[in-house]
Amino acid sequence: MAYEPAQPIAPLPVPDRLLMGPGPSNVHPRVYGALATPVPGHLDPVYLGIMDDVQALLRYAFQTGNRHTLALQATGMAGMEAVFTNLVEAGDRVLVCVNGFFGGRMCDIIERLGGEALRLEVEWGQSIDPEAVRQKLRQERAIKAVALVHAETSTGVLQPLEAIGALCREHEALFIIDCVTSLGGCPLQIDAWGVDAAYSGTQKCLSCPPGLSPMTFSPRAVEAIGKRRGRIPSFYFDLTELFKYWSEARVYHHTGPISMMYALREALRLLHEEGLEARITRHARNAALLIEQLGSLGIAPFARADVRLPSLTTVRLPPGVEDAAVRRHLLNAYNVEIGGGLGPIAGKVWRIGLMGYTSHPRNVYYLCHALRAILC
Amino acid sequence: MAYEPAQPIAPLPVPDRLLMGPGPSNVHPRVYGALATPVPGHLDPVYLGIMDDVQALLRYAFQTGNRHTLALQATGMAGMEAVFTNLVEAGDRVLVCVNGFFGGRMCDIIERLGGEALRLEVEWGQSIDPEAVRQKLRQERAIKAVALVHAETSTGVLQPLEAIGALCREHEALFIIDCVTSLGGCPLQIDAWGVDAAYSGTQKCLSCPPGLSPMTFSPRAVEAIGKRRGRIPSFYFDLTELFKYWSEARVYHHTGPISMMYALREALRLLHEEGLEARITRHARNAALLIEQLGSLGIAPFARADVRLPSLTTVRLPPGVEDAAVRRHLLNAYNVEIGGGLGPIAGKVWRIGLMGYTSHPRNVYYLCHALRAILC
Repeated sequence: MAYEPAQPIAPLPVPDRLLMGPGPSNVHPRVYGALATPVPGHLDPVYLGIMDDVQALLRYAFQTGNRHTLALQATGMAGMEAVFTNLVEAGDRVLVCVNGFFGGRMCDIIERLGGEALRLEVEWGQSIDPEAVRQKLRQERAIKAVALVHAETSTGVLQPLEAIGALCREHEALFIIDCVTSLGGCPLQIDAWGVDAAYSGTQKCLSCPPGLSPMTFSPRAVEAIGKRRGRIPSFYFDLTELFKYWSEARVYHHTGPISMMYALREALRLLHEEGLEARITRHARNAALLIEQLGSLGIAPFARADVRLPSLTTVRLPPGVEDAAVRRHLLNAYNVEIGGGLGPIAGKVWRIGLMGYTSHPRNVYYLCHALRAILC
Repeated sequence: MAYEPAQPIAPLPVPDRLLMGPGPSNVHPRVYGALATPVPGHLDPVYLGIMDDVQALLRYAFQTGNRHTLALQATGMAGMEAVFTNLVEAGDRVLVCVNGFFGGRMCDIIERLGGEALRLEVEWGQSIDPEAVRQKLRQERAIKAVALVHAETSTGVLQPLEAIGALCREHEALFIIDCVTSLGGCPLQIDAWGVDAAYSGTQKCLSCPPGLSPMTFSPRAVEAIGKRRGRIPSFYFDLTELFKYWSEARVYHHTGPISMMYALREALRLLHEEGLEARITRHARNAALLIEQLGSLGIAPFARADVRLPSLTTVRLPPGVEDAAVRRHLLNAYNVEIGGGLGPIAGKVWRIGLMGYTSHPRNVYYLCHALRAILC
C-alpha cells in the first residue's frame, strides 16, 4: 500500500513522569482501571446510567443544584468556547477581567462570535479588585455578562468570587467563570457565590486525563440562552441540544466519549470518597509545605499570599538560574515535569502544580531534593 | 458538604458487550492497554512524538500524502463541524447529497454558519448518481463544495466517490466527505479519488473508543481556508491554529486528549500491522458471511448489493418481528448489541456492524445463533 510511515512505529513509549507542571497532573491508578474497562454502546442503558452518575457527582464537585450540569465531549478549552458560543451573539457586550493568559483567550473567542469584549486589565500576578468591576458596571451600558478566570494557570492567582457574584446580580449581568484549575482542589461554591456559567477540565485537580470539560449553568444562564436573537452558530456546542441529551429524554446528539466518561466517573467517585473539604485541606497543606521547602532553597513565591492558588504555585526563578536547562534536567534525569512562565513572565517564573493525585508530600520532597541537587 | 448524590455511586459496572450495532465497535485489547498507559505532560517530547506517529499512521489509513492530517480533539461529529466551520462562511453555497441521516446533519451545520445548503436528495437506502451531481453543478452558480457521506451509518450504503471527485475538479468545487464508518474498513483513497476534506471517527473500523476525529485536508482545501473573507467563528475548531499545533512549530492550542491519542496510535498500529488490504478483505469476507447466515434465517439485506457497506449491514425485519423487544432480548440475554433503524426506516431495519475488532466469524455465528433462538 502507498503512503507507508517513513519510520517503523514502535510500541508505545512509557516514561513514568511525575507531573508537577500546570497540568495535566498524575492520573489516579483507579482512573487508569476505569479507562481500560470494556466499552458498551453509547445508547446502552448501562452507559446512560454512567452519565446520570457523572451528573450527580459533578453537582457535588461544583456545589450546585443546577439541573443543567454536564461533562462536555471535548477538552477544557472547549468548555470556554461552549459557554461563549451559547451566551454571546453579535452585538453582546461582555466585561472580561484579564490578569493572565486565559482571560485574553476569552476575549478572542467573544470577538470571533461578533461580541464585544470590554477588558478590565490588571498586571499578571494580580487579582481583580471588585471595586473596579463595580465601576465598570456603572459606567458601561448593557453589559450582558462578566467573565473571569477563578484560578489563573498562567500566574498561580486565585480570584475571590463572592463579591463579584453579588455585583453581577445587582447589575443583572451573568457571571461566567473558568474554574479549570480550581474544581476539586480549591473552595468553589457555584450556587452560594452566584455563578451562572462555569466550565472546568478533567486533567487538573480531578486526577483524570485531559479530554472532557465539566460544566454547569444556572437557571438565569439557561434563560439567557433561550432569549437569543439568532441561532447558535455551532451544532457540536449547542447547549439547547446538549441539555436534551443530558436529560431523561437522552436525545441523540453525538457518540459519547465513553472511556473518558468512565475515567471521569471514577475520578469524581474518588473526590466524593475523600470528601471535598478533606481534598481542599490536602491541597492547601501540600502547597504550604512546598512553599516552606522551596524557601529553604532560596526560592520565593510569585503570587501574593492572600490570592495564592493551592493547586498551582508560581515561584520566581533564583538569580542566575537557566530556566529551560533546569526544567530539561528535571525531566530527563528525574522524570519530573514543572512548567515555565508564559507571556510577560516567561523565563521569570516556574509553575509547580500539586493537583489531585499529585498533591502529596512525597512529591514535594522529591522535587525539592532534585532541585537542590541541580541548583546547589 | 451540600449537594451530595441522592444515591451511593457504585463501582463501575462492566457488562461485557459484543458491539454489533452501528458503532462503537469492540475495542481491541491492545488499545485498552494503551488507554491505561501513564500520561505524560501534553508538551512532553514523548507526547509530541506520539502526535507525529498518529499523523504518519493516519496518512496511511487515509491513503494520502496530505501534510494537513490530524486527529481532532473531540468526537467524530466534531469532525463534521470543523470541516464546515472552516470551509463555509455566510453566503457560501454547498451542494449536499442527502441519502440518510448524516447528510441532513451536514445541512443543519452549514445553515447555522450562514451558508446555503443545496440538497440533492434521494430515498434512504439509495446511493447518489454522479449524473445528478453533474447536472446540479451545471445548473447552479458558484457552488463552493460538494459534500456527501461515504458510508451512511443510517442506511448501510457505500457511496462510490471517484466519479464525483472528478466532477468536483472539473467544476472547481471542493469535495468534502464523511468517512466515519469507512476509514480502516472499506477501500478509501483520499488522494487518488480527489477528496479535499475528510473526517472520520475512532469508534468504528479502527477498534478504538469514541472521542477523536481523524481528519485530512488537501492543499486546495487549505488554500480555500486561507481565502476566507471573515474570521473563523470558532477558536476550538480553527484549523489555521490546529495546523500550527500539528506541525513542527507545535504552537499551544489546547491540552491534548493524551489517553485517547495513545489509544488511537495503538489502533492505527494494529491497522498497519494487519495491512489495509488485508483489513478491507477481512471486512468484506465477514460481511458476506453475515448475509449468507442471515439468509438461512430468512433475513434479507436492505441495501442493494453493489452499494452495500462491508462494515455495516442493514437488513429488513422479518414480518411479525417486534423490533425493540428482540434487540432488548439480544442485549439482556446474550450481551449482544445491534442497532435499530432511524428516521423513515425506523422499525423496518436492523443495523448490524462488523467493524474493526468486531469483524470476526465467531461474532457472526454467535449473533445468528442468538437470533435463531429468539426468532425461531
